[in-house]
Amino acid sequence: MHLAPAAHRPGHDPLLLARAGLSRLVEPTDLTAMVLLAALGPVAALEIAAGARPLRAAEHPVFLRAAAEAGCAPRQVDLRRALARWAPRAEELDPAEDLAVAAGAGAWFAVPEDPDWPAALADLGLFQPVGLWGRGDRRLLSFPAARAVAVVGSRDCSTYGRHVALDLSGALAARGWTVVSGGARGIDAAAHEAALATGTGRPATVSVMACGIDRLYPPGNHGLLRAVENAGLLLSEAAPGCTPSRYRFLQRNRIIAALSAGTVVVEARWRSGAQNTARHADGLSRPVGAVPGSVHADTSAGCHRLVREGTAVLVTDVEEVLELVGPLGTAVAEPTGHASVVDGLPERDRVLLDALPLTVRSRPEHLSRVAGLSVREVLGGLRRLEERGVAEGTGEGWRRRR
Amino acid sequence: MHLAPAAHRPGHDPLLLARAGLSRLVEPTDLTAMVLLAALGPVAALEIAAGARPLRAAEHPVFLRAAAEAGCAPRQVDLRRALARWAPRAEELDPAEDLAVAAGAGAWFAVPEDPDWPAALADLGLFQPVGLWGRGDRRLLSFPAARAVAVVGSRDCSTYGRHVALDLSGALAARGWTVVSGGARGIDAAAHEAALATGTGRPATVSVMACGIDRLYPPGNHGLLRAVENAGLLLSEAAPGCTPSRYRFLQRNRIIAALSAGTVVVEARWRSGAQNTARHADGLSRPVGAVPGSVHADTSAGCHRLVREGTAVLVTDVEEVLELVGPLGTAVAEPTGHASVVDGLPERDRVLLDALPLTVRSRPEHLSRVAGLSVREVLGGLRRLEERGVAEGTGEGWRRRR
Repeated sequence: MHLAPAAHRPGHDPLLLARAGLSRLVEPTDLTAMVLLAALGPVAALEIAAGARPLRAAEHPVFLRAAAEAGCAPRQVDLRRALARWAPRAEELDPAEDLAVAAGAGAWFAVPEDPDWPAALADLGLFQPVGLWGRGDRRLLSFPAARAVAVVGSRDCSTYGRHVALDLSGALAARGWTVVSGGARGIDAAAHEAALATGTGRPATVSVMACGIDRLYPPGNHGLLRAVENAGLLLSEAAPGCTPSRYRFLQRNRIIAALSAGTVVVEARWRSGAQNTARHADGLSRPVGAVPGSVHADTSAGCHRLVREGTAVLVTDVEEVLELVGPLGTAVAEPTGHASVVDGLPERDRVLLDALPLTVRSRPEHLSRVAGLSVREVLGGLRRLEERGVAEGTGEGWRRRR
Repeated sequence: MHLAPAAHRPGHDPLLLARAGLSRLVEPTDLTAMVLLAALGPVAALEIAAGARPLRAAEHPVFLRAAAEAGCAPRQVDLRRALARWAPRAEELDPAEDLAVAAGAGAWFAVPEDPDWPAALADLGLFQPVGLWGRGDRRLLSFPAARAVAVVGSRDCSTYGRHVALDLSGALAARGWTVVSGGARGIDAAAHEAALATGTGRPATVSVMACGIDRLYPPGNHGLLRAVENAGLLLSEAAPGCTPSRYRFLQRNRIIAALSAGTVVVEARWRSGAQNTARHADGLSRPVGAVPGSVHADTSAGCHRLVREGTAVLVTDVEEVLELVGPLGTAVAEPTGHASVVDGLPERDRVLLDALPLTVRSRPEHLSRVAGLSVREVLGGLRRLEERGVAEGTGEGWRRRR
């Protein structure tokens, strides 16, 4: 454990070192660690969590009060059990080395105390990341979540899902929205790709990863993730070198949800990480959209489930996504291309139009019997239909005009 | 106008004749006619509507009271205008002849006063049909709407929609439900077909048509509609010989909705008759389901619209349809095939499973670092995972078992 020497190494902010250490030592959203951090701050929290010193008598009530404020029962934040959990990693802890490894990979480490820390992450409360390792232009870090949409979905997506992800993400990015996703194969990759291709936002796209920032995982997305780094941001709460585990993927999803105004699930199986992201967004009171698909496609079963359970709103195009995530009144989806020549006509005129023959001509008296309207109503209606260009009359009678 | 002589022809019930006459004279849901019928009964209503006699002074307040009870403003039930509307058809009115034509086509005429009149139609209130012309075994007419589902959709459906309609309708019919539809091409035809093939209900299927009962429309469904007649019921509120008009199609849809416990829209365009049926069902407080599909398919746009507007619940299979329409507690959709080996395990065991390698073996001390768990938690977790058959250990360490 190289905690103490590193903390005093010149050029290293003790707060940065402490948070880097916590990022290595504890799993994301480890409840006891988060309460410890909330109660005593990063430096003391790391000293205690790493076993460098015990919780002092004076700190005990502060810790318990923080637990109570977080709504935790004392047995949920059992420090003795937690220390047993942290001890194996504490032995190898060396946050200064982690910061050096990150810097070697062109990465930086941001903490909640930084002025450019994304304000939206505060919505995660106790479960705000202890810090974020990042690659890309650090000046982009403070991008507003209010102008970002998470576009997520299955790794093993269908061709249909990939096309929808490309369409939606491309359209969002072209309108200046930041597309946030998880950098995985499938839907995530399509979302990043399209945002990079059409994006005008700053950043066009952000990838929140589950592994260490020095890794570009999965290997098949190496080129894509490099492109995201160049034009946008790669972020991770996991310490350098960490492997992506299922648990970290699931916890990572809360960051994707928190960094955006809303989440769109393009494709998801019945059980899936994308659904988990949707639930995180829902839990943060961020709106969730889900794209429908074939009832025969397992790849859409999770989307349908989200809609049926009321977690997600069904969305079919970018206008509906913007209606979902945009500030009230800025972008109400208007159905397009669905106007009809009979819009605004009284119902009896529609009945009359319906009774008009297409080829032969029909006299008003006959039309009145067929349509069940008085002759007077027929004559008035024919005039209105003629004005709309859908009926034409001669001395021989009237017919519909195509 | 052959009203008076016919009404007194022996063997003809005056009430039946009056309702047959109204069925010919007025369009479905003609508000003034329905108020007249509610106020004065069928015989007087027809005499007045057909112009055989005026509204008597004593009848006037009864008519106005019925209008007020129906929530109508006096100008909505302007009898003078209505008489002008009905007059062209009154000239040719001959209900006895209509009954004879119907009988010649093997059809019967049922009225609300009959003991076998479908009780569910009373939910239509003022807009209950004045009568129903029918073909098929009349003893089936009193089938319970509580055991019927309307399966409706576009005429120009996709292959996908047709398959879903066949699947849903077949599964419903096989469980003894009556499938109600509109006898049209496309989704309706598929619904009837599948119900005829697998149906065990009495009747297996009911087709509510928009044209006269002596016609089998559209011609392409001639064979199918004959089969419906043989095994189930053909119904129409339109008098014999009537052509199907857009207005009648739309009004007909309220009968489809009323005769079933709920309506499922399999495919529908943005504007469509199937959507109209859904709105009728919704207006009758009958649940509506809509089947999702590709966002690129115009044939699903109306279904997605219904779900987005909150009129319909998204449904993907027969279990979800039964959950929607069935009495509470009889058929709750249970997700099938989605069980997982980790169900019921504590979260830390899932984290541990996730950390277990697939090929090489890993020791508990190493696992505790990777998973961020204490060695004690790892050992307990490995035991539980072994019991579930997903982990296996030897002296060399542990690995995941496929």
